[in-house]
Amino acid sequence: MDQFSSEPEYLAALERRGRMPRGFRRAVTSLEFKAPEMGVDTPMPMNLAAVVADEPVQSFAGMFTRNRFPGAPVVLARERMCGARMQAVLMNNKVANVGAPNGIADAEEVIHAFGRATGIDPQFIIPASTGVIGWSLPVEAIVGTVFRLAADLSDASILPVAQAIMTTDAFPKLRSVEIGDGCIVGIAKGAGMIEPNLATMLVFFFTDIEIERAAMRRLLAETCEISFNRISVDGDQSTSDMVLMMSTGKVAGAGEEEMREAMRDLGRALAEDIVRNGEGTAHVIRVSVEQARNEREAEILGKAVINSPLVKAAIFGNDPNVGRIAAALGDCAGNHDIELRPERLSVSIAGEQVLTGGRFELDGAKEQRLSSYLKHAAQDPTGCGYPQHDRTVEIAIACAVGAARAEVVGADLSYEYVRENADYRS
Amino acid sequence: MDQFSSEPEYLAALERRGRMPRGFRRAVTSLEFKAPEMGVDTPMPMNLAAVVADEPVQSFAGMFTRNRFPGAPVVLARERMCGARMQAVLMNNKVANVGAPNGIADAEEVIHAFGRATGIDPQFIIPASTGVIGWSLPVEAIVGTVFRLAADLSDASILPVAQAIMTTDAFPKLRSVEIGDGCIVGIAKGAGMIEPNLATMLVFFFTDIEIERAAMRRLLAETCEISFNRISVDGDQSTSDMVLMMSTGKVAGAGEEEMREAMRDLGRALAEDIVRNGEGTAHVIRVSVEQARNEREAEILGKAVINSPLVKAAIFGNDPNVGRIAAALGDCAGNHDIELRPERLSVSIAGEQVLTGGRFELDGAKEQRLSSYLKHAAQDPTGCGYPQHDRTVEIAIACAVGAARAEVVGADLSYEYVRENADYRS
Repeated sequence: MDQFSSEPEYLAALERRGRMPRGFRRAVTSLEFKAPEMGVDTPMPMNLAAVVADEPVQSFAGMFTRNRFPGAPVVLARERMCGARMQAVLMNNKVANVGAPNGIADAEEVIHAFGRATGIDPQFIIPASTGVIGWSLPVEAIVGTVFRLAADLSDASILPVAQAIMTTDAFPKLRSVEIGDGCIVGIAKGAGMIEPNLATMLVFFFTDIEIERAAMRRLLAETCEISFNRISVDGDQSTSDMVLMMSTGKVAGAGEEEMREAMRDLGRALAEDIVRNGEGTAHVIRVSVEQARNEREAEILGKAVINSPLVKAAIFGNDPNVGRIAAALGDCAGNHDIELRPERLSVSIAGEQVLTGGRFELDGAKEQRLSSYLKHAAQDPTGCGYPQHDRTVEIAIACAVGAARAEVVGADLSYEYVRENADYRS
Repeated sequence: MDQFSSEPEYLAALERRGRMPRGFRRAVTSLEFKAPEMGVDTPMPMNLAAVVADEPVQSFAGMFTRNRFPGAPVVLARERMCGARMQAVLMNNKVANVGAPNGIADAEEVIHAFGRATGIDPQFIIPASTGVIGWSLPVEAIVGTVFRLAADLSDASILPVAQAIMTTDAFPKLRSVEIGDGCIVGIAKGAGMIEPNLATMLVFFFTDIEIERAAMRRLLAETCEISFNRISVDGDQSTSDMVLMMSTGKVAGAGEEEMREAMRDLGRALAEDIVRNGEGTAHVIRVSVEQARNEREAEILGKAVINSPLVKAAIFGNDPNVGRIAAALGDCAGNHDIELRPERLSVSIAGEQVLTGGRFELDGAKEQRLSSYLKHAAQDPTGCGYPQHDRTVEIAIACAVGAARAEVVGADLSYEYVRENADYRS
């Protein structure tokens, strides 16, 4: 992870990182709306943002939440994956457009208005919304703003888009990689630890590197599998999660392996940014599960550890509580019929062996050392450095029943998490 | 639920409830031990308790944690389920005997000593331990105490046993029912919300009502399925969960339906006692899922709601956050391939419809009413009444895809939960 000494320095770095791939333009604007039917009588600000390709592209891909109560934008975006072309993404924050009475019609109306403003076929525009669940899109206010948005399109840095889609995010998340003459830029929205009824995660990748649609779709699915699907903050999958990718194909294709590595690094970096984002996150926890029967089981076991409230609370309290880790693994294995033999199970924290062959290897001095390690690994909001440091709590689990491995990243469970999520909305 | 005006009144009621079924005796004692290898250098108190049948019985049953990292007592108890007879349960708190270097041998040694002290075949004695994971049983101290325990056996109320097995429990949990001349008494150990690395749940049922072993095993499995398996506090299943039942058969058998109803009521009451127990529990949440495709899916959906950190934190904050309930249901259905159609889904809180056919039905006034309802449903630790009140947050979910139903009970997520579970152990 990178370390910056101040917010301006971080934003300057993101500005540079955010160079637009060839053939894309972007715009950002804001508007005000009211939601009197929800008791919101004072005007609220909403950001509107768009990324537009100069021409319709054939190479586009999307991965969506498996939540059976998806937002209207997810429904429409999923449908559009079957179309022949794609040209633009229109994004808003503040209202997720989930469960609203006319959600689909509202999203269609907004897209059509943006199509009229830009001359883009509405079938080639993907809507993406994040914000409060249950509220309706302020259609009139958005429609009144899309012409201004269209007029502002430019090929400057994508950073303002990464900022516009923030809700409870503490900082914008933007990563990029150059391959030869081309580049891939990725932005993400999603607050790790703190998510007061706001839809969780939006991720967009834009590239000018030529890649066939089918290859891109395989690549994006693989990338999500080993990045966004391997982070977990509180086990809740939102109604609006969406990962999109588009290519203008302006630069000759890179090697398949090169693209895979680039996307893996981008995906993992953005995923870790999301976990590290939450103000309530004191510790970022990385769990590697080795020697599992297969990769899927390794992933499920790792997630059981980072999703256990008891493990998360212990780490928040700088308590190297090996018993809870073992209990979480055993619970998960029993419930999912996963190959896990207690007498072969080993666990280490920060490289120190704490469980070997199912037996605890602890003493007072080791516990003290590990507790100090956890204290040091905590993020210090008052310390220097912005917005993240690179410290992580490293837990390694060896199952000794196979050769597969997976790594997952999660966050601890803090007072701040409860406070933020218990606050009444209005 | 019952309401008592003071702790002495509650304990007096439990004393009366705790009349021993014919043919059982019990004893309780305490000892002190050190665990210098864990940095525990000052003496710690431990309770030892036993319930003994006058003669070996044929009717006994047990249900055990599915955790793949079970404690030594669970391993031994499970083995003993295959035996011909059972006569005693020997219990201790403070040390769970999970993952300790010689856990099985330690438990065997303790059981053999109690066998010598009572003349009971060690194969007929079930060990049950609850407490810190990873610590070793203080074998010497226990062996030096079992003769005193054996000498103290009496047929007085079982209440002291319910008290002896407490760890972080705020109050003892004891329920009983009379059927004709016989009775069933049940005790439970398990702190709902707060479980600082102590094994979760022990439940013991003793009865003098005649019932065949096979019938008892079916009955106990059914009871667990609709009571202890339908509560969830933090989604963690412990390494030591155990539910045991024994009958001396001194009283002629009751009707099958009568026994089933009695056990269902006892199981549910003890299960709710466990959820209501935690000091950190401000709200007890009851979720009924109706019109599901089958009972299993109804149960899984209900548990998804009571296990969602976002739903739990919202309820702690008296926020009637319907969006999070819908998101939790949709997430669960998508991940488990459960029949759930957004356009048919309805949700009510306290009888007020908040989602109908997938659309939110909320307005400012309704939100205020529901927030007041949640405030009133919270437990008030400073108020009168001991130890529980009967208030519950009632959430009803109608899937409109079938005719099956299930009800689950859970707890909210409070600061207190994090504080208790983050505190460093020593």
